[in-house]
Amino acid sequence: MAATHTDKAFEQDLRNLREKLLAMGAKVETLISQSTRALTDRDSALAEQVVGADREVNRLEVDIDDLCRRILALRQPAASDLRLITTALKIVTDLERIGDLAVNIAERAMDLNQAPPLAPYVDTPKLAELAQQQVKKALDAFVSGDAAKAEDVLKGDDLLDALFLKIFNELLAYMMEDSRNIRRATALMFIAKHLERIGDHALNVAEMVIYMVRGKDVRHPRSRDLE
Amino acid sequence: MAATHTDKAFEQDLRNLREKLLAMGAKVETLISQSTRALTDRDSALAEQVVGADREVNRLEVDIDDLCRRILALRQPAASDLRLITTALKIVTDLERIGDLAVNIAERAMDLNQAPPLAPYVDTPKLAELAQQQVKKALDAFVSGDAAKAEDVLKGDDLLDALFLKIFNELLAYMMEDSRNIRRATALMFIAKHLERIGDHALNVAEMVIYMVRGKDVRHPRSRDLE
Repeated sequence: MAATHTDKAFEQDLRNLREKLLAMGAKVETLISQSTRALTDRDSALAEQVVGADREVNRLEVDIDDLCRRILALRQPAASDLRLITTALKIVTDLERIGDLAVNIAERAMDLNQAPPLAPYVDTPKLAELAQQQVKKALDAFVSGDAAKAEDVLKGDDLLDALFLKIFNELLAYMMEDSRNIRRATALMFIAKHLERIGDHALNVAEMVIYMVRGKDVRHPRSRDLE
Repeated sequence: MAATHTDKAFEQDLRNLREKLLAMGAKVETLISQSTRALTDRDSALAEQVVGADREVNRLEVDIDDLCRRILALRQPAASDLRLITTALKIVTDLERIGDLAVNIAERAMDLNQAPPLAPYVDTPKLAELAQQQVKKALDAFVSGDAAKAEDVLKGDDLLDALFLKIFNELLAYMMEDSRNIRRATALMFIAKHLERIGDHALNVAEMVIYMVRGKDVRHPRSRDLE
């Protein structure tokens, strides 16, 4: 069957949706690295920038939600297209929460920048970079419908968890060494936890992509086939 | 126009969806209170029960997702019905994450139960109760399409944040007092943080309900009308 006018409009909608999601993804990736740099470079102006930029992320969320609803209402997609749109609706929420977490990191960085630095933050930037890569990979997997890439994200999460635990234990040691470290080390712990949670959001996205592509649910141990 | 066969089937689908969401909500509320009791009553068997019950929550998530997709495909709802279904798709993700957070609390409780108790956990159960009420209220607001109730949830979040901060500062004081408290106080901090995050999920649900009912977005400062 030749492509009808409606098919073309639908294709254009989907292209539009993918582009918007990638733009939102790129935005939150930037916020992750900026919020961490605000900490390591003690740059509170950059931290304020992250807090301000969250508005843009929120606007993108509303836009994408509206676009998904419009596609559902006008095109009434079925089967794999329907799975694509309903997955996009969920993914956009994860992206928005990642933006919120970057804001939380920036806010903690502003607090920390008012006291002398605790120690070189060796592994925090590495954790941030890992988290950021996971977000990028998960979103690429969605946009290209690539389940193998999504599975990479699943594997990558162990690395992220291990690094979080390492940072956590180092900070615990600092706290025990000197009680004057406690307040700052606690703030750094929460920053590390936020980064680990960003990784969890990437993981959630990846699991949804696998479900979308394969019709199999890997979100939960007992995977099952679609009807 | 008299109700057609399709209308009736659609109504039945929506009733089914609401019931399933309420069942999932009741389940995660139970997990919140059980995970906290596992801590305060030092009951690791109960904690294990929470970890095990998460599977049921996950099954409910998959069920509800499938039901939403089926309704979208078969009934092709428009306007407010479409908004209801797409909101349900998002809410179910929040409920599942709340279940995950209850599991995280239960796991920390199991760790803590192996050491002598740090102090009476006075405010932790109160924080858990608040979080649980917020979840219940947000979900009731969704099921009854009650924007005023959803606004109550928005207001309630400040209380929850204030209580979290109080607990956080108390634990910080314990840590500074005696370095032998640090490990346990840190674990309790994370538990309090998990409860505060549960409150955030309730807040997210409430914001989506207001959008669904009023067609206004309160998720983000600059609310706007639907087209």
